[in-house]
Amino acid sequence: MKQENYAMLCDFYELTMANGYFRNGFHERVLYFDLFYRSVPDGGGFAIAAGLEQAIEYLQDLHFDEEDIDFLRSKNIFDEEFLEYLRQFRFTGDIWAVPEGTPIFPSEPIMTIRAPAIQAQLIETYLLLALNHQSLIATKANRIVRAADGRTVLELGSRRAQGASGAVLGARAAYIGGCHGTACVLTDQMYGVPSAGTMAHAWVQSFDTEYEAFRTFCELYPNNATLLVDTYNTLKSGVPNAIRAFKEVLLPKGIHKCAIRLDSGDIAYLSKEARKMLDAAGLTECKIVASNSLDEYLITDLLRQGAKIDIFGVGERLITAKSTPVFGGVYKLVAVEHPDGTIEPKIKISENIIKITNPHFKKVYRFYDNETGKALADELCLFDEDAPEGETHTIFDPNATWKTKTLTHFTAKSLLVPIFKDGELVYETPPLEEIRRYCLEQVSLLWDEVRRFENPHTYYVDLSQKLWDVRHQLLKEKQNLRNQ
Amino acid sequence: MKQENYAMLCDFYELTMANGYFRNGFHERVLYFDLFYRSVPDGGGFAIAAGLEQAIEYLQDLHFDEEDIDFLRSKNIFDEEFLEYLRQFRFTGDIWAVPEGTPIFPSEPIMTIRAPAIQAQLIETYLLLALNHQSLIATKANRIVRAADGRTVLELGSRRAQGASGAVLGARAAYIGGCHGTACVLTDQMYGVPSAGTMAHAWVQSFDTEYEAFRTFCELYPNNATLLVDTYNTLKSGVPNAIRAFKEVLLPKGIHKCAIRLDSGDIAYLSKEARKMLDAAGLTECKIVASNSLDEYLITDLLRQGAKIDIFGVGERLITAKSTPVFGGVYKLVAVEHPDGTIEPKIKISENIIKITNPHFKKVYRFYDNETGKALADELCLFDEDAPEGETHTIFDPNATWKTKTLTHFTAKSLLVPIFKDGELVYETPPLEEIRRYCLEQVSLLWDEVRRFENPHTYYVDLSQKLWDVRHQLLKEKQNLRNQ
Repeated sequence: MKQENYAMLCDFYELTMANGYFRNGFHERVLYFDLFYRSVPDGGGFAIAAGLEQAIEYLQDLHFDEEDIDFLRSKNIFDEEFLEYLRQFRFTGDIWAVPEGTPIFPSEPIMTIRAPAIQAQLIETYLLLALNHQSLIATKANRIVRAADGRTVLELGSRRAQGASGAVLGARAAYIGGCHGTACVLTDQMYGVPSAGTMAHAWVQSFDTEYEAFRTFCELYPNNATLLVDTYNTLKSGVPNAIRAFKEVLLPKGIHKCAIRLDSGDIAYLSKEARKMLDAAGLTECKIVASNSLDEYLITDLLRQGAKIDIFGVGERLITAKSTPVFGGVYKLVAVEHPDGTIEPKIKISENIIKITNPHFKKVYRFYDNETGKALADELCLFDEDAPEGETHTIFDPNATWKTKTLTHFTAKSLLVPIFKDGELVYETPPLEEIRRYCLEQVSLLWDEVRRFENPHTYYVDLSQKLWDVRHQLLKEKQNLRNQ
Repeated sequence: MKQENYAMLCDFYELTMANGYFRNGFHERVLYFDLFYRSVPDGGGFAIAAGLEQAIEYLQDLHFDEEDIDFLRSKNIFDEEFLEYLRQFRFTGDIWAVPEGTPIFPSEPIMTIRAPAIQAQLIETYLLLALNHQSLIATKANRIVRAADGRTVLELGSRRAQGASGAVLGARAAYIGGCHGTACVLTDQMYGVPSAGTMAHAWVQSFDTEYEAFRTFCELYPNNATLLVDTYNTLKSGVPNAIRAFKEVLLPKGIHKCAIRLDSGDIAYLSKEARKMLDAAGLTECKIVASNSLDEYLITDLLRQGAKIDIFGVGERLITAKSTPVFGGVYKLVAVEHPDGTIEPKIKISENIIKITNPHFKKVYRFYDNETGKALADELCLFDEDAPEGETHTIFDPNATWKTKTLTHFTAKSLLVPIFKDGELVYETPPLEEIRRYCLEQVSLLWDEVRRFENPHTYYVDLSQKLWDVRHQLLKEKQNLRNQ
């Protein structure tokens, strides 16, 4: 399975601007863009980066076909020389990004692009789309998995996804965030996410009796028998029929591993009653699966009520990140490189302070405590600043500079790693399994106070003194300009 | 551009059930499924059907490749005979559906599938996905377009969409719902939705001064000059620079058509002030475009405040249907056809009354008033019932049968049209332009009370007496079963 060439999945203004850059002769001027986000979905304390692999595939294959050129020509606004340029178009720039699965915080670059103006502008939409979508779902999945507190979480939402890639790549992102599997067969085939499934009500309805439906399923799949028990009446019919089928088909074969699925009604109550009935029948190893519009809030509440659930099947509220279905990643110009190699920082100001960008070509360091291993803070600094070293390092709040914090016994790690150099891929995408493991490990290195759902502690994302100075200077200049 | 073969975009349980049907010898048993939804997003009065064209493409191309078979074999739970069956698999069933753009109401079939068990089961996920996604976005777009009250609405959300198909097909659905264009170039290329665009902040930042950026753009695109005026200071810098550029570049060419775009700050205030400045400069034909997290609620509020906006650019809140990002279409077994041709109705009961299905193979009639042309009510009836005719027709509320309404001077139209017959496509998909026009026309035939955003009147979706009797009889039988 190969990804399509998505060169034309761009915004029309990127093409008009590109044509304009071309006409003005600065299409070869090198620009720097940062891709970052401004607020954590669901009021959480952090997000999970995902989608880099798809961004890489897009950039590697990026080109305009002859039919694309013809289509653009038909608009009658593009210069023929520009269309010829597009015909030769390849991505030749540099890219740095945080690896997939990394916890990320607002306003720090999760990707930095250095490329000639037209290239940097044309790839904006797809890069944002790829990272926004999968980061959204990985973040949501991680919340749900944490709410499930060690229990299995399966992604079941394909049918309610916003389009085919929403389903397929959403299930990939959900796995990165910590889900244990998916119902989506194509995601298993393409990305190796374990697929799993039970039965639909239609299976039960297709037989004359519920018992017959259950018995047949157990005979077919003795090692994977999960029976859906709510078609007629969960406690009066479904669970007793399931117990009978398990006892008559599975136990004689020595199989104790089995499960029932609850998909409607009061899951807290039904799970407790079903657990008692299963235990009383000696089926203590039978698992209980629950599904029905679940998310992190309902799962937390179910567990608080003592619900007896071993496996959560999560559908529409995960695959669409229903409570906050947008990841607001943006793509902003941060610097222009002059022909002599000097880099001129650029800032975008705004009435809204949170919308003022961090200018310049940058690095991001994450500080880990040498004793606990916990992540302490992130610091954005200029591209040529070395990692802070030594006994202590003092960071400060960029919006309240008198608030300082001195770090001791820390190790600084650079978050952004090189992905493309002069258009060549210089990064090896890790296996998905490893990305998932890395994500869970990195999340475990955040303090509980950052991880909690309600009013999490704001993790420090500070600026180095040098970067702060550059930003301050640019803000002063713009302010003078505005006051003229 | 060709759609991929999405045969493997199914839920794992569909394959295990299919294998089970095969082993039990009733894979050739013909089943009837209804696809319908249960509640209108955003508490609205109706939804808009969309996505049928993609469902058709999927069914036409549906097959399992050799690599798919190999992948399934590797799971070690499917019978070799079943895999051989999949190798030969084609869709051979019948499908009826409401045309795209039709206003649809909860609990009425928007698609009915008649096919051998395995086929009907395997296509569940993709059909739901295709119709759920596009109906969601078309419905949201229609709300936004109605809020804009005749003004132009452009879809600009690709970068925040949930995956590539979320962006591309979302923009298609938004057009069906009434949007006038999209920023997404690929949607223009694939579906002919007019693409449009302005400029990004990066264009303005790339020049030494804002005026230079504006002037250059006007020279490049004198007939399409929409200038983004909020990079530095909207009223002090952006609008005056835009006015200067328009006057110096466009007016000498005799061009009065131009526009500015507001993307941040207090849009109501800024638009009114900008309008005054433009008018004072004689630029009365200059349009004002507004964008910045808009939706139907904000647009309504902006217009109530007297904002001077001609064109709304709508991004993330449309392309993800942010306020209700899930369209809850379901796919339920409604009947089984026996080898002698008799059709046995099936029902799915639930504690939750809204989740009890309408059994049997059905037709849907929509009654229009002969004088006003308005849609009066829908009626679900058995597949072999003729359209009600004559002077009067009395309908009744299926949940409160004493509530009746007698229709006079009506015309009944059948909503479900044949799409596939014995696996052959028997439907010609209309051009997108025509679907959009049909949608707007059909929405105009709904009463204002059904169309309003707050507490809309519930449109009548009733059952014929015969269908009601079938449903009542099945409910009684199931109730007796439960009480045993």
